[in-house]
Amino acid sequence: MTRNAHPTARPSHTEGRAAARPRALTRTLLRGENGAGTVRKTVLPGGLRVVTETVPSVRSVSFGIWAHVGSRDETPSLNGATHYLEHLLFKGTSRRSALDISASLDEVGGELNAFTAKEFTCYYARVLDSDLPLAIDVICDMLTDPLLLPEEVEAERGVILEEIAMTDDDPGDVVHDLFAQTMLGDSPLGRPVLGTVETVEALTRDRIARFYRKHYDPTRLVVTAAGNLDHATVVRRVRAAFERADALSRADAVPCAPRTGDRPLNAAGRVGVLGRKTEQAHLVLGLPGVSRGDERRWALGALSTALGGGMSSRLFQEIREKRGLAYSVYSYTSGYADCGLFGIYAGCRPAQVADVLAICREQLARIAEEGLSEAELRRATGQLAGSTMLGLEDPGALMHRLGKSEICWGSQLSLDEMLSRMTAVTVEDVRQVAAEVLGRRPSVAAIGPLTQRQSDRLESAVA
Amino acid sequence: MTRNAHPTARPSHTEGRAAARPRALTRTLLRGENGAGTVRKTVLPGGLRVVTETVPSVRSVSFGIWAHVGSRDETPSLNGATHYLEHLLFKGTSRRSALDISASLDEVGGELNAFTAKEFTCYYARVLDSDLPLAIDVICDMLTDPLLLPEEVEAERGVILEEIAMTDDDPGDVVHDLFAQTMLGDSPLGRPVLGTVETVEALTRDRIARFYRKHYDPTRLVVTAAGNLDHATVVRRVRAAFERADALSRADAVPCAPRTGDRPLNAAGRVGVLGRKTEQAHLVLGLPGVSRGDERRWALGALSTALGGGMSSRLFQEIREKRGLAYSVYSYTSGYADCGLFGIYAGCRPAQVADVLAICREQLARIAEEGLSEAELRRATGQLAGSTMLGLEDPGALMHRLGKSEICWGSQLSLDEMLSRMTAVTVEDVRQVAAEVLGRRPSVAAIGPLTQRQSDRLESAVA
Repeated sequence: MTRNAHPTARPSHTEGRAAARPRALTRTLLRGENGAGTVRKTVLPGGLRVVTETVPSVRSVSFGIWAHVGSRDETPSLNGATHYLEHLLFKGTSRRSALDISASLDEVGGELNAFTAKEFTCYYARVLDSDLPLAIDVICDMLTDPLLLPEEVEAERGVILEEIAMTDDDPGDVVHDLFAQTMLGDSPLGRPVLGTVETVEALTRDRIARFYRKHYDPTRLVVTAAGNLDHATVVRRVRAAFERADALSRADAVPCAPRTGDRPLNAAGRVGVLGRKTEQAHLVLGLPGVSRGDERRWALGALSTALGGGMSSRLFQEIREKRGLAYSVYSYTSGYADCGLFGIYAGCRPAQVADVLAICREQLARIAEEGLSEAELRRATGQLAGSTMLGLEDPGALMHRLGKSEICWGSQLSLDEMLSRMTAVTVEDVRQVAAEVLGRRPSVAAIGPLTQRQSDRLESAVA
Repeated sequence: MTRNAHPTARPSHTEGRAAARPRALTRTLLRGENGAGTVRKTVLPGGLRVVTETVPSVRSVSFGIWAHVGSRDETPSLNGATHYLEHLLFKGTSRRSALDISASLDEVGGELNAFTAKEFTCYYARVLDSDLPLAIDVICDMLTDPLLLPEEVEAERGVILEEIAMTDDDPGDVVHDLFAQTMLGDSPLGRPVLGTVETVEALTRDRIARFYRKHYDPTRLVVTAAGNLDHATVVRRVRAAFERADALSRADAVPCAPRTGDRPLNAAGRVGVLGRKTEQAHLVLGLPGVSRGDERRWALGALSTALGGGMSSRLFQEIREKRGLAYSVYSYTSGYADCGLFGIYAGCRPAQVADVLAICREQLARIAEEGLSEAELRRATGQLAGSTMLGLEDPGALMHRLGKSEICWGSQLSLDEMLSRMTAVTVEDVRQVAAEVLGRRPSVAAIGPLTQRQSDRLESAVA
């Protein structure tokens, strides 16, 4: 079904020429052990990284390309450009129309998709191993040779405005954006990934094209794959695809470094409210957390799991099981390069808001003061370790971890290292991070049909 | 962490007694081939079925128990009882509190959950293979010995009312209930699985307990497991767990038969509208489809895939890619024992509703008249076959298929049979089912901020 609208005129590179080309550097980062696959990394001339993990027991492969760009790289008027661009890369290349791109993976039952986050963007496919060459060819083509045609930019603007409208109709989703904004203010990290109706309406094709050229340089891309694959073959095919687009010509270019920085967050006692005629009020109560490079993240992860990470967690037990005040309640951590957030989400009818927030604050205060018991901590670390082991069977999850690790840390942690960091967390580690993180005044974001009196009470809930 | 609140006083059955017990009948239904696992089925005395599929390449197991009961088994005043009961089975047994149940799976990183549908209910866990005995013990205990304590019934009522409120806040979800109601009227299949605020507020502990006793008889349960497992061991452990609850004493009981029936649906030109202050209007345009036993389902499945099953489908291309009128648009089929539905979902801002519906109707009319081209059909069947192959690596999906097949058909289709049914669909098969199903007048359900004029235009959109 693939139609080559504009077949390339460039001669394709053949194996015979390989010796004359700049050398790629390949290292084995992790040897497969205890059920984990072998992880290999190659840096191609041009600074393009390829990281793979072999999982010989499966017949599928997840393949992705990660771009080191997210909404935090946007100026206020560019807000939404990263996500807009992500959509546009599906809209056609010199060799493929939008329909060619989607049909090529659809017809083999593959999944082709992408997502944009605050610090990175990822394009990925999951296919049977025999279809990996196709997935590589299509995704590399999308990333290296997008046409960004003006008429496609216009049609896609409507799609993105619909996506914003759809997201806006999901208050349990919007409240997380509102919480980020409440904590981080009008800063790149505080703005929504989708942008706003105003910024998306104003973005021009030229600005988006410039954004593409700036951020989709091979030094800022990471190719990842996990599943039943051969590393050298993946590298060879990726290299051929990028060379066809003449994207690896700067032989001395080196991969960009992970983001670093330290941004102290001092938000405390802030309240963000959006009135909305919904049945439930949707709440996030939270605090500044830790950045993703912070060693305390292991202890904070265990703490979050015990507080609100499962059906046996304190919040689930106190709010849902004992009192029936909410259906959905959980806690989470978000780590960025230079800062982090710690939040509790709950959705409940307006009359329950005060009770729910009081229980959350009480549990935060108790953990800040006492930490967790040994038994509670062991349950939490067991939960994290067990779900990590279960995740080993999902090539998509492995591919995701490879990309995020390379973008965020520039290195990979082995399964054993990960499990030992998780389970090495002590009661004292938790006590310390609890006192540091949870001991402060929280802030709150709320969306719902709150009366003035109920809104006013949010202020006192975080006093 | 498991606390045995009330240790059982009954002597446990030992292996030595097995010979004296009524015999279990085991058959190998499918021999593993082409990447598919071996499927075995045992019928235990008492009429309990155990169906497993071995997937030796994974280290996990998905284990589930399916009850042959769904919301269509409810009278109007019992609406929501099946789902309420599903919640209550997590709230404690003679041997385990609610916390014991959730903590036991949480601490090994397992997933424990359940869902209620119109024709069945399923309780399941995904765990590492070494934790399978635990998952079997916990889920069998939940199903055979629930306490249904009055205070737990009351606390859970609040949780379910919150779940109804949460669902109500998701218009893209509510519109499917509204469509079912529009097509099926105030009948068991037309009512919502969750029930309504009124019915849930009125349900008593005694009525729910009677509902449990009636529908959770072992003859109406199917135990399924897929992953790295040994069939005989699963059967032995399930049998021991059910015998401990004295649930297999009627040695001559036989499994209940699948539901049958034929309910002609004549809904045509119906309009269901719910006003809601949302950003988008959420639409389902649809028709009576085919029941799940109807041989035309293979052709209708291919048709639905080509019409709205992926990014290369007609609706995605016409509505989203070319015109940017929606973010989410897709078609789907729902099959029940005696009837079925065929629907198209789209979410778009109110101003686009007329255009979106016109394109949907035009595509329905074209396919009703012309069917699909050979190339389009082959892409659709390739998509279905490929995604079926990819699904083989997911023990959860396999467990789901085992349970649904046993409940709905009382038999299992092999991978090869399934693939050959999918790919055997001809252009003529599609033309025929298209003319029969799509040639009629559709109905429409809509939720959103529609003006009176926009609502009135829905009538003409299905005229």
